[in-house]
Amino acid sequence: MSKNKPKILVTNDDGITAKGIRNLIKEMCKLGDVYVVAPDKPQSGKGHAITIDAILELKPVKVADGALAEVACSGTPADCVKLAINEVLEDKPDLCVSGINHGSNSSISVIYSGTMSAAIEAGIEGIPSIGFSLCDYSKDADFKEARPFVYKIAKQVLENGLPDGVVLNVNIPKMSEEPYKGIKVCRQARANWREKFDKRTNPIGKEYYWLTGEFENLDAGEDTDEYWLAKNYISLVPIQFDLTAHHMIQKLNTWKLNE
Amino acid sequence: MSKNKPKILVTNDDGITAKGIRNLIKEMCKLGDVYVVAPDKPQSGKGHAITIDAILELKPVKVADGALAEVACSGTPADCVKLAINEVLEDKPDLCVSGINHGSNSSISVIYSGTMSAAIEAGIEGIPSIGFSLCDYSKDADFKEARPFVYKIAKQVLENGLPDGVVLNVNIPKMSEEPYKGIKVCRQARANWREKFDKRTNPIGKEYYWLTGEFENLDAGEDTDEYWLAKNYISLVPIQFDLTAHHMIQKLNTWKLNE
Repeated sequence: MSKNKPKILVTNDDGITAKGIRNLIKEMCKLGDVYVVAPDKPQSGKGHAITIDAILELKPVKVADGALAEVACSGTPADCVKLAINEVLEDKPDLCVSGINHGSNSSISVIYSGTMSAAIEAGIEGIPSIGFSLCDYSKDADFKEARPFVYKIAKQVLENGLPDGVVLNVNIPKMSEEPYKGIKVCRQARANWREKFDKRTNPIGKEYYWLTGEFENLDAGEDTDEYWLAKNYISLVPIQFDLTAHHMIQKLNTWKLNE
Repeated sequence: MSKNKPKILVTNDDGITAKGIRNLIKEMCKLGDVYVVAPDKPQSGKGHAITIDAILELKPVKVADGALAEVACSGTPADCVKLAINEVLEDKPDLCVSGINHGSNSSISVIYSGTMSAAIEAGIEGIPSIGFSLCDYSKDADFKEARPFVYKIAKQVLENGLPDGVVLNVNIPKMSEEPYKGIKVCRQARANWREKFDKRTNPIGKEYYWLTGEFENLDAGEDTDEYWLAKNYISLVPIQFDLTAHHMIQKLNTWKLNE
């Protein structure tokens, strides 16, 4: 292992054998020494869950050539990063990359995303970190055209670093006949998921629900991730885990809170 | 049911029978018509997890007098809010309150918190929303002194509303002999949890881990939640779910992303 090569931690939320992480590992191997610590099963929609009421297990595996180590973890994406840093790697990595997710994590989806929670967890630990997502939920999604952009963005982060408290959320349009037009730095669109619960009855007469929903962009801005993704650009949103709405502090101080 | 009374949705992450939510319900009954949709079991540390790979069940229950309806939900705190809005309530509530959590959700804990994810979920749906937490992890924590402050803050939100995209994170010191000094509007401290994995071996020789950790405040600022909580003030942090690090956008545009 070269001393000059950056050490790169790779994780995801679709599980260690997913096509997305396999593509990500291949690109990262061109940039440094790669260590993979990823869930042993799909963990989509797990948000920033951590496991405090159950045990966690690690299992060394070898899914493919390339990485210096691959470890499957029984926990959530955030657990994977915590275990990687504390129990698997000897030193902090120079970069953490999460993904490539099978499905979008643009706009409000960042809140629910296991992919992004892994990237944010690494950011909290002071590690430059990026989450990558392809807007294609298919298990057999095609990452071919995405890969050079993933490489380029990771290389820029290794070269430039990221300030404390900032993590990148990169979303890549589903591959089509038209090549990607480029990368746009933008902000998270104001959007939500309009839920629609699919109500059913089980064989013994008890009702239950499946959560489904439709994405709804509430933001007409021309500087958002949704805007540029729709135009076949790759969106790059810098995100932070200081959730303080600083603009609201002055206003709240006019409330009658201490009378 | 009076037409003039505000409709208040109450939820939490410790489960529908927890002492914290029971105290919260009592205060909210003084302010409006209360509907409870809360997890049927503890859901701490679930972050903003949603259930997309399993069914969800709702069960009407009656734990105590006061609320117009109480429903136990098999899902996460975020699921509870989604189901409450779409399947339990006829109209959107005027206020959503989550908690009172048994344990702190100040500074970085907001990221991992089921209590706050429920409040944030309601915020995403456009409902004025507050998460309340007592910095006392005990099941038998004493909420007596916290209650008038919870009432006062909820009343102020009903009177003043909250702007789109802003949710309140309220943390209350553990009760001591000294009365609370008041409420301070502040920002989220930069902090993290320094993990310490407790590594054990099971009876058949397989290693496993328990996640434990120590809270570490990295922020010397005198305007943070941690600072004021330590001085026996109640902290009120306005938070947002637009995670965009707006200050970073200009800087990223100087990177060589499209060359």
